[in-house]
Amino acid sequence: MPRTMDRDARKAQLAEAVWQVILDQGISAVSVRTVAERAGVAVGSLRHVFPTRAELVQFSAELMMERATERLLATTPRDDPREYALAIITNVLPLDSDSRAEYEVNLALLAERAAVPSLQQVSFDAHQQLADLCTRLVEMLTGQAGTPDGAPRARRLHTLIDGLAFHLFHQPAHGDATWALDIIQDELTATAGDANNDGASR
Amino acid sequence: MPRTMDRDARKAQLAEAVWQVILDQGISAVSVRTVAERAGVAVGSLRHVFPTRAELVQFSAELMMERATERLLATTPRDDPREYALAIITNVLPLDSDSRAEYEVNLALLAERAAVPSLQQVSFDAHQQLADLCTRLVEMLTGQAGTPDGAPRARRLHTLIDGLAFHLFHQPAHGDATWALDIIQDELTATAGDANNDGASR
Repeated sequence: MPRTMDRDARKAQLAEAVWQVILDQGISAVSVRTVAERAGVAVGSLRHVFPTRAELVQFSAELMMERATERLLATTPRDDPREYALAIITNVLPLDSDSRAEYEVNLALLAERAAVPSLQQVSFDAHQQLADLCTRLVEMLTGQAGTPDGAPRARRLHTLIDGLAFHLFHQPAHGDATWALDIIQDELTATAGDANNDGASR
Repeated sequence: MPRTMDRDARKAQLAEAVWQVILDQGISAVSVRTVAERAGVAVGSLRHVFPTRAELVQFSAELMMERATERLLATTPRDDPREYALAIITNVLPLDSDSRAEYEVNLALLAERAAVPSLQQVSFDAHQQLADLCTRLVEMLTGQAGTPDGAPRARRLHTLIDGLAFHLFHQPAHGDATWALDIIQDELTATAGDANNDGASR
């Protein structure tokens, strides 16, 4: 295995250990020592890859975003634009235990911005990426790009997704989530319908 | 001053120091030592009021919720239900530097649930309180209580508020927030309008 692959695999292993420490003990417990212990590596070995806690935390945030993007890109295309949009949004929401854990880690990293200011950029990038995704979904649903109505619709969809994620995270895991998907489905239908009605507002 | 008032004032002073440490250095930096230092009291004196970090963090979360509730109750009533609802929701959203700081502290405390499990109850309570508020606002706007249409409308409003809060927190402070209030205003108008149209869905 080439040396860079070794290094990438080691970095990913350490990032996953950061996520585990956050889930079990909270972001406060994340230190070079606790993460090295969790990953089963020596502190010196971790420091060789990430000299500081900030670099370690930053990388773990970046890798989380990267994986979320990969998961979105892997969403199987559907013939019906509304079904496809719903499938993509379902992949964004914390609906199963894995994505709930991911959301919890994201919140923790967001909350750690005061200690690791470079996290601010990661969270802005992630936010912008979701905004762009919503713009593309609205364009797909309405068959129109760059219309004046598109921007508020995309913002509204983005707001609903952010709100549902926060909301779902507050309800018990495995709680009923039909209501959340109903809200999204209504919004997608309204967006597609508005376009057919010559852009009449809701 | 009676002894209990002394104690309440001291507890509030320590809670405010917790918020300040979170804002400046992140939740990871919150310890009995850093908070005592910030509040300008001896560690022993802090420990006399809050024997553990968990109790200190828990109280600071509870006091934050209490103050948010007080602020909501202080919203001046208006004759127009939609204006009153908008004023209340404006008070919930992180639109100025104080409420942004409050939101940031809330996120940090939410992210600390793994370390301080009793915070889970505080965040569930806060979430439920906002859900109840949305139910009351929808009842006020529609003039109907306990109708089958009320629950999904209240959930949708709650989702939009959660989403806008998250969204506003991601955009720079003092950024344009007109779009956010427009989304709320559209929703309030649609809710009031739906009721007048005999509960037709949007």
